[in-house]
Amino acid sequence: MGQMTIKDVARRAGVSFQTVSLVLNHPEKVARTTRETIETAMRDLDFVPSLAARSLRKKPSRSIACVFSLGAQPADATFRLREEADQGLVLQTFGYVTDQQGYTLVHRCRRGDDPDGLSRIASLVSEARVDGIVVFADRQDDPLIGLLQAKRFPFVVFGLDVPGTHYAMQAERDAARDAVRHLIQAGSRSICFFTGAGDGRRWRAGAERFRGYRDALAEAGLPLRDDRVVACDCTSEGGYRATRALLERLDTGSGDRPDAIVAASDRVAFGALKALHERGVRVPAEIRVVGFDNLTQGAYSVPSLTSVDVPTLDMVRFAFATLVELIEGTRAPDDLAQRLFPTRLVVRESTAARPQA
Amino acid sequence: MGQMTIKDVARRAGVSFQTVSLVLNHPEKVARTTRETIETAMRDLDFVPSLAARSLRKKPSRSIACVFSLGAQPADATFRLREEADQGLVLQTFGYVTDQQGYTLVHRCRRGDDPDGLSRIASLVSEARVDGIVVFADRQDDPLIGLLQAKRFPFVVFGLDVPGTHYAMQAERDAARDAVRHLIQAGSRSICFFTGAGDGRRWRAGAERFRGYRDALAEAGLPLRDDRVVACDCTSEGGYRATRALLERLDTGSGDRPDAIVAASDRVAFGALKALHERGVRVPAEIRVVGFDNLTQGAYSVPSLTSVDVPTLDMVRFAFATLVELIEGTRAPDDLAQRLFPTRLVVRESTAARPQA
Repeated sequence: MGQMTIKDVARRAGVSFQTVSLVLNHPEKVARTTRETIETAMRDLDFVPSLAARSLRKKPSRSIACVFSLGAQPADATFRLREEADQGLVLQTFGYVTDQQGYTLVHRCRRGDDPDGLSRIASLVSEARVDGIVVFADRQDDPLIGLLQAKRFPFVVFGLDVPGTHYAMQAERDAARDAVRHLIQAGSRSICFFTGAGDGRRWRAGAERFRGYRDALAEAGLPLRDDRVVACDCTSEGGYRATRALLERLDTGSGDRPDAIVAASDRVAFGALKALHERGVRVPAEIRVVGFDNLTQGAYSVPSLTSVDVPTLDMVRFAFATLVELIEGTRAPDDLAQRLFPTRLVVRESTAARPQA
Repeated sequence: MGQMTIKDVARRAGVSFQTVSLVLNHPEKVARTTRETIETAMRDLDFVPSLAARSLRKKPSRSIACVFSLGAQPADATFRLREEADQGLVLQTFGYVTDQQGYTLVHRCRRGDDPDGLSRIASLVSEARVDGIVVFADRQDDPLIGLLQAKRFPFVVFGLDVPGTHYAMQAERDAARDAVRHLIQAGSRSICFFTGAGDGRRWRAGAERFRGYRDALAEAGLPLRDDRVVACDCTSEGGYRATRALLERLDTGSGDRPDAIVAASDRVAFGALKALHERGVRVPAEIRVVGFDNLTQGAYSVPSLTSVDVPTLDMVRFAFATLVELIEGTRAPDDLAQRLFPTRLVVRESTAARPQA
């Protein structure tokens, strides 16, 4: 039997070749019974769609999209902010993992202030230009998540626990509790929590960390003081400003000095270290500092920074593997893959029980 | 006149509808004269291809790929290295710019040790799953560049000047010369150059920086000393180790102490600052330090870091605009867009003429 064509299939199935083409390209537009008749004819004839036809129906290589759902932001002004959000690292990790697996990675942002953002992502889905999506969002009620659920499109949420979805998240509450326990063991009794949500954004991870902070204080019998919870942006500048403001308030005699800071991120912590250094406050002798993320840089700051190490590569691998299962149909959509990844506190000079030589 | 179909076009042009379809989907496969006849017929009839046909010919949303052509690397072991290479930031910048312009960004790596890497990128091209490619490479003779030239595929090289290609690169030589001039003006006379290519990689940008270093020494009448050119990896660890080794050599009495370091990157500089701090060497009083990249973090290091600011956003915009011109045919492939972007030295504490209070 020679190479079968779309017309042979049409003849056998008793339909027009346009209908066969439609099955190849947009099967969802063809009535189920018609589709099944045509698919049977294809099998009977050992029909192999031409490359061109197949590339319409399904990309030759599979692809997934990483979609960052951001809050409302003015454009360039906050570009630096996004640099600091370290999406780049996670994105690069996804690039690394998808590449190893022969997948193509597509990158998309949705800014909250972009009215077309959601519809553009909806078109990414409805035109099936990707096979699955990894969602990055701050809030459980992010509209993108609702959209993907409604479309029943394969997706996994990264860095956020959203009930009813597949997700990979670090155990933020445990992480913060471990960090504060460590500070208390080292001798700290008056510990500041820098929120990283100074712009009022609703940041689920930050809220979880605050719970861990509260847990550790409670178990040690230490009071939860309002003046120890400091709103600051999740940047080095934010940490720097918040620390300066804190020290200036103390200079005016209002309140006692804290002996530790739990910063929302390493970048916030770097800003805090700088402000403390400029004011001549010794770290860790007078104030201990802990960060989150364990950026490479923390090993080289002065003093080096104690930080919460996040298993980014493991999380990315889990999220990717889950997404592939959903795409390939080896995992049922309601068989939820939800994992909280344990973190690890990496202790360095900034929290040493006694000052370094 | 009602909605014209592919068959109307075929009738008018005197060809089969399959040929019209081929022109819509794979114009490169159709003889030029035939193609022109069909295109004239389309214009005459005000033919608008159906969405399905257009989506075959051209994706509903245009997309470009950022392809990182990396040297041979073992897999996970060097993942940290890649974190430090700050591809993430550039990738994120491309994501930001393409997103603003309604383009989709695809991310691809090609590792030198992956025999399939080049062929997978070749398939990205031959199947035209993207409309254009931005190439990131260390070397002018990277095989990916040759491949894209041979395929006559729209591409722009980023961060590297490759003759005969469209590219955006920072003016590395000028940048290094400016940095060394600044050090000499501040009083330095014995200036180390940390290469960032300690693993022996051929890194064009690093080589250009070395030329700028040499230029500035020559114009000031200072000698170019072999023992002042220090091979080190382009990481904080690399800068840390190289600085320690340098200081240890001096301890054994072999040689005089340098009074400045030009580091291959901010990360290298952070490592150097740490090693100097641990050894009690005062910066800038005893040794001044300059980095490259002007990472946000440099404003918060102790001391804060003088660094070369690179106009990443401008470079990305230029590269993207050029690529769009090539894709849309408004720029002829041989009308080369090549730009060296000037950098700016941001002076901070690490090179102050006199020590900070």
